[in-house]
Amino acid sequence: MRHEFRKEMSLLEDTLTMLAHQSAKAMERAAASLKDANLALAEQVIDADHQIDFLEQNVDEMAISLLARQAPVAGDLRTVVSAMRLAATLERMGDLARHVAYIARGRFPQTAIEGATYELLTSMADEAAKVGKMVSELVENQDLSLARKIEENDEVLDNYHRQSFELVLNEDNSLTRQEVVDVVLLGRFLERYGDHAVSVSRRMVFLVTGLNTEHDSGPGTEEEILG
Amino acid sequence: MRHEFRKEMSLLEDTLTMLAHQSAKAMERAAASLKDANLALAEQVIDADHQIDFLEQNVDEMAISLLARQAPVAGDLRTVVSAMRLAATLERMGDLARHVAYIARGRFPQTAIEGATYELLTSMADEAAKVGKMVSELVENQDLSLARKIEENDEVLDNYHRQSFELVLNEDNSLTRQEVVDVVLLGRFLERYGDHAVSVSRRMVFLVTGLNTEHDSGPGTEEEILG
Repeated sequence: MRHEFRKEMSLLEDTLTMLAHQSAKAMERAAASLKDANLALAEQVIDADHQIDFLEQNVDEMAISLLARQAPVAGDLRTVVSAMRLAATLERMGDLARHVAYIARGRFPQTAIEGATYELLTSMADEAAKVGKMVSELVENQDLSLARKIEENDEVLDNYHRQSFELVLNEDNSLTRQEVVDVVLLGRFLERYGDHAVSVSRRMVFLVTGLNTEHDSGPGTEEEILG
Repeated sequence: MRHEFRKEMSLLEDTLTMLAHQSAKAMERAAASLKDANLALAEQVIDADHQIDFLEQNVDEMAISLLARQAPVAGDLRTVVSAMRLAATLERMGDLARHVAYIARGRFPQTAIEGATYELLTSMADEAAKVGKMVSELVENQDLSLARKIEENDEVLDNYHRQSFELVLNEDNSLTRQEVVDVVLLGRFLERYGDHAVSVSRRMVFLVTGLNTEHDSGPGTEEEILG
């Protein structure tokens, strides 16, 4: 029974790690498809999203089954509950990567935007991909120094997000309406991807240490940018 | 022990209901503040958000404590797990209402947008508020006919969302850049609010019936609008 339980716990963690890898891979590809107007790559991201959904569903079913049959306590309970929450967040990160890929695909054979705007948004997408990779390593290795790095690094994406608003709100920049819409949405998707990465890192801290830092955050950049 | 357990379960459900009420109230006020450029109301939404966060945290803590001490099974386990997931979604709906309030506050003493755009976006916000009210009643009464209504009704918000894109992408419409940004973001926030409402209604179906309809959905309007 005990042996069976440990085997199931380890399968749960492995599935979660696969999910984190896939979400990171999705953003890596979405960023590349945006940069090079690579239609095949954008399609790959879009098609692979159902695998991410399937892995999330797997984690949920395993977690509920473990709760029902094994009634885990203490650290094991934390792991099971955290796995469900992390899976939901990682699935959402995959969705955001897919949204980026939709935009890349929709503008093909052009890139979504050009000039200075292109530089800004592709840098932001690369940064999101970098964060996704850190998240994936954190989920796999539970190395909390990565959680700290992800938190600190979030300012980089926030800054890109601010810059994208400045660019768009400046009426002197000649952008088509479609470009304005793309910048606003890409900025939003990539910044949200970063927010979810921070949420994952806080949940990993909770999983490993039992300390809850989830609700320590302020209102974020939304207040500043929207209001 | 049994009596204590039922008391705790009922407290968990009451707290979740309070959370649903607050999220609905937040969108109702955010929609009104947007319509009338009502600064005080927008501020109220923004200030009240920490109460929503606090209620979510309460639900989570109660749920984990119940899992650890009472090891619920079958329908009770479903209720506890669903409560955690629902709380996360309802909290996010509150955040989206707050984002709408940021925009209303940021444009004061003007309204965020004018003319036909104003009509469209305020109608969309009213629709979101209506959906929020249905969600709140559904969580309180577990009346699954409301879940069906929320699902069916989602098309209304999706249509508004489509129309907002048509409006913004039409270069003949004279809109400032700020107005374009506001329309894109408001459309996104309100459509997401509706998506979360659908997610709540599917989770309520799972809670009440044990049937999982969570993963039945297609790609949504994003594919069509973005790509």
